[in-house]
Amino acid sequence: MKLQNQPKITRLPFPNSKKIYVKGSREDIQVAMREIYLSPTITSDKTVIPNDPILVYDTSGIYTDQNAQIDIMYGLPEIRERWIEERNDTQTIRYDGILRKRRIRKAKSNRIVTQMYYARQGMITPEMEYIAIRENMARELLWEVYKREPKILPSGLPEFVTPEFVRKEVAEGRAIIPANINHPETEPMIIGKNFLVKINANIGNSIITSSIEEEVEKLVWAIRWGADTVMDLSTGKHIYETREWILRNSPVPIGTVPIYQALEKVGGIPEELTWEIFRDTLIEQAEQGVDYFTIHAGVLLKYIPLTMNRLTGIVSRGGSIIAKWCLAHHKENFLYTHFEEICEILKTYDVAISLGDGLRPGSIYDANDEAQFAELKTLGELTKIAWKHNVQVMIEGPGHIPLHLIEENMKKEEEECFQAPFYTLGPLVIDIAPGYDHIASAIGAANIGSMGCALLCYVTPKEHLGLPNKEDVKQGVIAYKIAAHAADIAKGHPRAILRDHALSKARFEFRWKDQFHLSLDPETAEEYHDETLPSEGAKLSHFCSMCGPKFCSMKITEELREYAKQKNLEEMTAIEEGLREKSKEFKEKGKEIYI
Amino acid sequence: MKLQNQPKITRLPFPNSKKIYVKGSREDIQVAMREIYLSPTITSDKTVIPNDPILVYDTSGIYTDQNAQIDIMYGLPEIRERWIEERNDTQTIRYDGILRKRRIRKAKSNRIVTQMYYARQGMITPEMEYIAIRENMARELLWEVYKREPKILPSGLPEFVTPEFVRKEVAEGRAIIPANINHPETEPMIIGKNFLVKINANIGNSIITSSIEEEVEKLVWAIRWGADTVMDLSTGKHIYETREWILRNSPVPIGTVPIYQALEKVGGIPEELTWEIFRDTLIEQAEQGVDYFTIHAGVLLKYIPLTMNRLTGIVSRGGSIIAKWCLAHHKENFLYTHFEEICEILKTYDVAISLGDGLRPGSIYDANDEAQFAELKTLGELTKIAWKHNVQVMIEGPGHIPLHLIEENMKKEEEECFQAPFYTLGPLVIDIAPGYDHIASAIGAANIGSMGCALLCYVTPKEHLGLPNKEDVKQGVIAYKIAAHAADIAKGHPRAILRDHALSKARFEFRWKDQFHLSLDPETAEEYHDETLPSEGAKLSHFCSMCGPKFCSMKITEELREYAKQKNLEEMTAIEEGLREKSKEFKEKGKEIYI
Repeated sequence: MKLQNQPKITRLPFPNSKKIYVKGSREDIQVAMREIYLSPTITSDKTVIPNDPILVYDTSGIYTDQNAQIDIMYGLPEIRERWIEERNDTQTIRYDGILRKRRIRKAKSNRIVTQMYYARQGMITPEMEYIAIRENMARELLWEVYKREPKILPSGLPEFVTPEFVRKEVAEGRAIIPANINHPETEPMIIGKNFLVKINANIGNSIITSSIEEEVEKLVWAIRWGADTVMDLSTGKHIYETREWILRNSPVPIGTVPIYQALEKVGGIPEELTWEIFRDTLIEQAEQGVDYFTIHAGVLLKYIPLTMNRLTGIVSRGGSIIAKWCLAHHKENFLYTHFEEICEILKTYDVAISLGDGLRPGSIYDANDEAQFAELKTLGELTKIAWKHNVQVMIEGPGHIPLHLIEENMKKEEEECFQAPFYTLGPLVIDIAPGYDHIASAIGAANIGSMGCALLCYVTPKEHLGLPNKEDVKQGVIAYKIAAHAADIAKGHPRAILRDHALSKARFEFRWKDQFHLSLDPETAEEYHDETLPSEGAKLSHFCSMCGPKFCSMKITEELREYAKQKNLEEMTAIEEGLREKSKEFKEKGKEIYI
Repeated sequence: MKLQNQPKITRLPFPNSKKIYVKGSREDIQVAMREIYLSPTITSDKTVIPNDPILVYDTSGIYTDQNAQIDIMYGLPEIRERWIEERNDTQTIRYDGILRKRRIRKAKSNRIVTQMYYARQGMITPEMEYIAIRENMARELLWEVYKREPKILPSGLPEFVTPEFVRKEVAEGRAIIPANINHPETEPMIIGKNFLVKINANIGNSIITSSIEEEVEKLVWAIRWGADTVMDLSTGKHIYETREWILRNSPVPIGTVPIYQALEKVGGIPEELTWEIFRDTLIEQAEQGVDYFTIHAGVLLKYIPLTMNRLTGIVSRGGSIIAKWCLAHHKENFLYTHFEEICEILKTYDVAISLGDGLRPGSIYDANDEAQFAELKTLGELTKIAWKHNVQVMIEGPGHIPLHLIEENMKKEEEECFQAPFYTLGPLVIDIAPGYDHIASAIGAANIGSMGCALLCYVTPKEHLGLPNKEDVKQGVIAYKIAAHAADIAKGHPRAILRDHALSKARFEFRWKDQFHLSLDPETAEEYHDETLPSEGAKLSHFCSMCGPKFCSMKITEELREYAKQKNLEEMTAIEEGLREKSKEFKEKGKEIYI
């Protein structure tokens, strides 16, 4: 299936922002970032003090680069192609594709091509260097920017992420770089507890709704608002084609749940699944370029009875499919029994494995129960096997977990799975918020993120109700950017907080436009402001519609500081030293100094 | 100013819900609750098992009671009038009012009329009994409802809140019952760490926008969605009139920040404020029936210099007004120096005091700083003074606090202020979410609520940008209901979780309508579902548009359970006992049993 017309894709850059590229040790390491330009601070005596631009982590790819030429019908530039080629450990198995004929790669015989393997060999790949620069958001630039204003840096210069640190984290399994050799379009990124917290957005059609065109736009839209990875969970028609369109146009890693496609191949009847069909599906998707697979290998036959007394049984699609297969055949889960073979396949493409939590709780009632933790233990066993094969691993987690049980989840995951990155869906902290589950789950996500969860899978307002549309995708992504950012700050990533300080400084100085531009969603911020005070003049005024001019605390504080500056600041300090002691003196000269 | 026409007020009951009244020990204690009716569970063999209704805490007053006659131009029935009269400790000082002439009460000479005073005398007031029933949500009824289905109760029968427990908590200052004798329209409620977490919604016009009519509808709208208290923060024209309309039509306690009105009286110039003008304002509002006053008595002159190096200075309106007054006169805050006189006034009407955090941080950068905690210490001193006068006290808190600094706030508040109820604004855990600050702050609110914060002041999507409209009020209230409910569950209130279990059960059984009806916002839940599957039939179907029929995990689980039921459940258990040990036996008879 080929699209007839160039799909409509959102390509506007963010307001007052510019895409910049920070060069690494070689010319073809060009790390994309967004620079937000700010207006100057104008002091009461009309001194103009420039505010240097703020650099932010940017997942949007070249879609927000005004200079980039993009042809959706062809796909993005293959920025990693040369790095892959240079390693000289892959072979071309054929040229294939829907959008264009492209080279399909596979590891040479007896070679392993995973980033974990390279890391363990002591090799720092261009991907690792790219990530180091990206996670630092160009520390040297930050320093340039902030040295004039050290006070808004929380504790001096941000800690430095070196390429060597990236390598070490990947080698030890605490972080993964999802980077299939057949998806050279990706801008490298990392998932691990010692890096910025990442978020995942799920897209994909179901049999009921959605077209390929819509899904590509959802991808571009999701990364525009900050999705670090995207999962294509399509289950309807055209699974293969939809995925090809998404992969070729995605600068972020793409994950899938291969059993969905395998099930389509057997007409939707779980009992008819076989290892061979599944294996072929893995290879097909690995050749296409999928960067990570969710595989529900921890759903063991013996765990199924543990779900029988649950309030909501098995709520993972993959988990329930496998459970049905296991019971029907009375055989152990074929994903478990063939796990070593799965790893053999994955390591020849560098597909990371995301060990699915098929038995995650689907309600607060079922949280942290025996079934859930039994499966988690098995995921730990499987982690070791994957690592033996140099396959990168992350662990999926729940689901529905009340606030007070979140910590146990994170702790158990670290213990049982040896600090492999944790990747949770929410968790939702209550069940009664259909229509608002992005909020109910952002609460859980911020908490588990602050405890070390590395990747937060978003939940949209449509969760439990229907397939998310474009607006739902945005709402979900922004709620999760909030959660991830809250976690980053709580974890003390110094790089995370600079934008907050810049925004608060802009807010305090009534630089309204800067406040909008520094927001996660500049358009909505400006639109909300303009609802009550639409004139351009209002964006220069030192108050807003919340309080009006007389009641504006920031305006009063401004006056207060002005006042203090004009008077003797030492006198102010004297107040601090103790009002009572100084009261006599102050009373004597009070009037002249303070009025 | 009199409204010319009956304002348009939202009066629809919630779908499938009925207002019920649970009688206390006397005929005029009729505790309002909402009962949600559910459809029966229909098992695979077509057995019909009824699902008993779910009782929920209801703040919406008689506006959602179809049988109630409401005249907004007159006001609500005075349900506490007789209780107040019976105590025989108040005198009528005059008849007055805008909507209608009403009795204005005051304590008789040398009498104290606060709930704290009564509690300390060992008296259980009708208000306390009402609250006990309300907090339990009629435990006896719950028992009736759930005895047929004990498994969805988390740990047997919910713990019982007795009227005596309510009395003790109020006597010891750990909880307050905001209940001005001049606001007999209130349905009694309690704020304290050992009760359900409550939320506050701010409404009120500013000079820029909004009419009285809009504000009354915002009140009704806010309580419809779950606001437990409402603050009228009007600063524009008609402050007195707006408040009268709100008070007479409000079944929830109303709070104000009296300094706003005092400032209006002096033309908006903080320097011209005087104790006398403020005192008269307090009396005026106490006579009108305001249930709690925010008073920024902790902003001391010596603390002002501590804010000079902040990123965002003083962000509390009241705090900045006081700071300006203090500096201008170089005098100590008159709210501090006259605090005992304030208490003398408040105890003659039972107005609770909400000690304002005038120096709360307005950015992550300023969180937990010296200024903030210096003021908190002073609020502790003032708490003791208020308690000496039998005035009920709560303590206001921040503001902007990153996740990892929230716990320190709660701990310090409990230490410095002797467990007086904590009442926080959010806190917002990041600064970069304008347009989404209801989410950024709900994360903080859920966390501090779970740690013991008793009242969560909502933040709307318009925070920092403009005055909230009706839709913003709803978004703010619902985000905070989510936060409060998450906190209740984390605190282990057994009463909190029943609705979640009922909803999850409905979800699992594909009772779509019940899922909507049990939601915090039934209309939105149904609307979202219908976006992709609008037919009525879809609400009976055992799947939704998210996954379609073949990929529905719950449908598969349902089949799985059905399967297990038909087969031998003991065999299932055998699986659990260990697959490997039993493998031989299973292999032998596997085919016949399981296929």
